[in-house]
Amino acid sequence: MRAVDLIRRKRDGGELSAAEIGFLVEGLTDGIVPTYQWAALAMAIVWRGMTTVETAALVRSMLHTGTVLDLGDIPGPKVDKHSTGGVGDKTSLILAPIVAACGVTVPMVSGRGLGHTGGTLDKLESIPGFRIDLDLTAYRRIARECGLVLIGQTAEIAPADRVLYALRDATATVESIPLITASILSKKLAEGIDSLVLDVKTGDGAFMSRVEDARALAESMVSIGRAMGKPVRAILTSMDAPLGRTVGNALEVRESVECLRGEGPADLMEVSLELAAEMLLLGGVAENRAAALDRCRQSIANGSALDRFRRVVAAQGGDPGVCDDPLGVLPRAMRLETVRAERSGFIGQFKAWSVGQASMLLGAGRATAEDSIDPAAGIVLVKTVGDHVAAGDVIAELHFNPPFAAALPAALEMVARAVEILPSPVRRPPLILGRLG
Amino acid sequence: MRAVDLIRRKRDGGELSAAEIGFLVEGLTDGIVPTYQWAALAMAIVWRGMTTVETAALVRSMLHTGTVLDLGDIPGPKVDKHSTGGVGDKTSLILAPIVAACGVTVPMVSGRGLGHTGGTLDKLESIPGFRIDLDLTAYRRIARECGLVLIGQTAEIAPADRVLYALRDATATVESIPLITASILSKKLAEGIDSLVLDVKTGDGAFMSRVEDARALAESMVSIGRAMGKPVRAILTSMDAPLGRTVGNALEVRESVECLRGEGPADLMEVSLELAAEMLLLGGVAENRAAALDRCRQSIANGSALDRFRRVVAAQGGDPGVCDDPLGVLPRAMRLETVRAERSGFIGQFKAWSVGQASMLLGAGRATAEDSIDPAAGIVLVKTVGDHVAAGDVIAELHFNPPFAAALPAALEMVARAVEILPSPVRRPPLILGRLG
Repeated sequence: MRAVDLIRRKRDGGELSAAEIGFLVEGLTDGIVPTYQWAALAMAIVWRGMTTVETAALVRSMLHTGTVLDLGDIPGPKVDKHSTGGVGDKTSLILAPIVAACGVTVPMVSGRGLGHTGGTLDKLESIPGFRIDLDLTAYRRIARECGLVLIGQTAEIAPADRVLYALRDATATVESIPLITASILSKKLAEGIDSLVLDVKTGDGAFMSRVEDARALAESMVSIGRAMGKPVRAILTSMDAPLGRTVGNALEVRESVECLRGEGPADLMEVSLELAAEMLLLGGVAENRAAALDRCRQSIANGSALDRFRRVVAAQGGDPGVCDDPLGVLPRAMRLETVRAERSGFIGQFKAWSVGQASMLLGAGRATAEDSIDPAAGIVLVKTVGDHVAAGDVIAELHFNPPFAAALPAALEMVARAVEILPSPVRRPPLILGRLG
Repeated sequence: MRAVDLIRRKRDGGELSAAEIGFLVEGLTDGIVPTYQWAALAMAIVWRGMTTVETAALVRSMLHTGTVLDLGDIPGPKVDKHSTGGVGDKTSLILAPIVAACGVTVPMVSGRGLGHTGGTLDKLESIPGFRIDLDLTAYRRIARECGLVLIGQTAEIAPADRVLYALRDATATVESIPLITASILSKKLAEGIDSLVLDVKTGDGAFMSRVEDARALAESMVSIGRAMGKPVRAILTSMDAPLGRTVGNALEVRESVECLRGEGPADLMEVSLELAAEMLLLGGVAENRAAALDRCRQSIANGSALDRFRRVVAAQGGDPGVCDDPLGVLPRAMRLETVRAERSGFIGQFKAWSVGQASMLLGAGRATAEDSIDPAAGIVLVKTVGDHVAAGDVIAELHFNPPFAAALPAALEMVARAVEILPSPVRRPPLILGRLG
């Protein structure tokens, strides 16, 4: 078997067998197939696509380059959620404790933020002491004890994905549904879960801005999950405006705690509860969506969800005081500037992409994987889509520290331009755009 | 400027500027742009193509990664010929002395054979003592003294092409008209020539089996030559059957000497003279095609062409006795087997690809660039397309040495299958299929 012949076949629109895909994936991991051959192959896959059978073989090969956990010793269902990434998307921090409180274990391996989107690991690390670099023994223990665990990708999990992801990033071959599907599922199916809920975001601040592309990705994930015997359900959600009122790591943890206390904003609660309810349904602990939503709301009302969060923060070395006094425990930026409404009216749009970019400029995100971030930096949306404003009202607060002061004018300009003020009342468009699986 | 952004633009069907192409080509040569990025880019170019302006920029950038010779100190026109490669294609050895004898200098940098096609350098090296690895000082001196010189690619000529060619070979990105155009022209325009004749082969034994593809490549080369201020003319020629009666290095040198003595087979003479006449026309030493053909024929009749060949062989260290007694001077294989006609009739086809493959099996060619070759091995077509045969007549001779005896059954089978015998007379189809430029 020669890699060049397989690349040629894919280039010409042909199909690769499971054995051929296995040869290519193992070859990438052990260096037998050089990165330049994989780069050409990846571009040919962007061009020609892959069938469901090919994509499933790719997921399986990538998954088995590393450790595939078996959490069968933890009783009850194990369900995870994955989001394709957004701005202000802190739903993992909210739904994981809720779902755990409802009796479904959530063993979650997350990523860091890149570009205008945030990452769960960066948010968690803004909690003083919180460690995301736990080994698989600690992962298993905390999942069992707390019902949830939140770590970063370890060296044992799908090593082929790490190599391929970096290569795709450098070769403009990220935008391929089979390659995205394989990247996500090869990591998620290594976690030892029974089933998976996907939050596929679409709109201005999403990776896939067109709803057709998001739907195609969701369909791919659901069908590959089926082909691999793992139930996958996907929810299409809107990412036109940031989710909730905060963007930036410590700010988002604070808002997540507010949500777990029952004081969260409506849009963020709607998406978090929708996803959580889907996880309960997949886990088989609720009869129907209404019952599932009801159990989720109860876990907030009776404090059990917040308690789960407190336990996992403590178990992972973080200061559990974040659940009681987030403002006191979390890092805070030294400077704050505001963006004010230029005229009276109703906020029609608050474009997520620009807010994410502005937040990155203030130090809350990374332009490249090597950049470090400032956990305190970010943006608070004092007003959001649908709100009435009078001219001069504060619309947004920019939180930042002195090293990033030079970026302030650009960030202010981006936030101001992200906002559209209309003369007549605006209804916030629906957040839940579809369900698949 | 970031390579990944340029790859993305090409992937999406956009155009690259000359400065961007220069950045990518220089980056490949000096290692700033890694091979994996170029591999993805090459696949994107296979997919999306390049405009004439982009291709000209690519040729120019690749050309100027190395030395571009100026042969302005040699009086008179300097014209070269390039063939896209075929089976039994020894026209370079015949036309270069003819053209030199007619007053046009032929400074020729050639390649080696790969796969089923032969290479001019391998043929020349079958002449005892002949050296193709001369430096550019010797190249310049011999071109001036003999009117022709025949060397291999040096490290100074288009180094980007050597890197890119090896990369394309390993990544299934060879089949791209802009990349083929850039590879050929970046080498040929470094030779110090005024103009170039291209022999674009099509048919069973050609790299481009479909005439539309060959025509598209010819059009690309002609238009890029024009964009770079170098007249390029292309002749489309048939490569359905091997050219002439011999395939294999020493065998082809012997046949070339026979041609220069006026004893060559009609098909080989027709193509050689057509290309030589085009070179005289481009060099401006003949009024029209008829006059050009006449001068070429005279150079054979009066011995001046053979004399040029004798001089260049001697100048490059080879035994000039090859011009007087080729059978005595050239290496000869120890074994000979024949393929006979299974029935009486007329030869309708003698498929070039199979003959080339069989010849490679006998040691005359290389399966990979690292293989060594046997200069004596090869195949003689005792009969060819259009000839009448009686059942049992010898159609072909297979020449080989004992180390390759194991390959004999497969080679015999391939040659036998290459031949089609028809009941009624066959006219050999035209060899010259078109002219461009």
